[in-house]
Amino acid sequence: MSVIAVLIHDLFEDVEYSKPAAAFENEGHKLVHIGLEEGNMVQGKKNDVEVLIDHGIDQVSVEEFDALFIPGGFSPDLLRVNEKVVEFTRKFVNSGKPVFAICHAPQLLITAKVLQNRKITGWKSIKQDIVNAGAEYLDQSLVEDDNLVSSRYPGDIPEFIAASLKKLQ
Amino acid sequence: MSVIAVLIHDLFEDVEYSKPAAAFENEGHKLVHIGLEEGNMVQGKKNDVEVLIDHGIDQVSVEEFDALFIPGGFSPDLLRVNEKVVEFTRKFVNSGKPVFAICHAPQLLITAKVLQNRKITGWKSIKQDIVNAGAEYLDQSLVEDDNLVSSRYPGDIPEFIAASLKKLQ
Repeated sequence: MSVIAVLIHDLFEDVEYSKPAAAFENEGHKLVHIGLEEGNMVQGKKNDVEVLIDHGIDQVSVEEFDALFIPGGFSPDLLRVNEKVVEFTRKFVNSGKPVFAICHAPQLLITAKVLQNRKITGWKSIKQDIVNAGAEYLDQSLVEDDNLVSSRYPGDIPEFIAASLKKLQ
Repeated sequence: MSVIAVLIHDLFEDVEYSKPAAAFENEGHKLVHIGLEEGNMVQGKKNDVEVLIDHGIDQVSVEEFDALFIPGGFSPDLLRVNEKVVEFTRKFVNSGKPVFAICHAPQLLITAKVLQNRKITGWKSIKQDIVNAGAEYLDQSLVEDDNLVSSRYPGDIPEFIAASLKKLQ
């Protein structure tokens, strides 16, 4: 059983959180939802899903977790103005532990400056940002580069889940 | 009287459109709202303001306009997946005509690859993207660099309007 940190805020892409989250829990893994403030309820952009923030970013450290999951939507853009979220993300990627990033999640990795010479995919709107950050952008449903697992959008979720679960074995 | 192209889609930051738009019209300038499809109504992210799209991007050319205005919010991220919007933006910046960009608007300029060696500001979440695009990011309420006028967020709107109006004289 792995403990997975989920970095999430309002306007996340509902199914990009809910489907992987259900699959991870179904396999016996534990999710810990991390946001700006403990006890907040955050809402998906389609208003289909809401999530309780278990811990504020001030209360956690990378050492407590086995993997990091960053859902897409506009949540990553809202989170990356917080320096502690950015620092947590940077430490996580540099720790070598698995990081699962879908859609707009690479925005957080860009601000954390951890994409130089990495291979990654993400939503096409941020392709140029990914390239400018020094990474190779691959227009594929799934990209795996060492500890980084990434996908583009909701249609890629089944492959994203399968590859992420393999990393947790 | 100038004719100003407004590139806009859903989830724009309401006041970043409505306040400059009112000021431009009050000075006798004409706004033409350009989006993905003529006749669409697009909604601000706060649901305070809605805008009718006068022309789809397929129907317009840079030559018809004297200036370009790009409001912020999540509208620029939604627009920059459309290649014709990106091409229109690139041509506009390269034409030397005034371009007014606030908040997340530089995302469109990044995808259009027109920020190399330019000075610009924008919402702090996209600071690293702006730097990675080869521009100098200045944390100032207003940045003017040749034809580019930029501001960070709603609090900067009065300065943004004043500088933009000067460019239209």
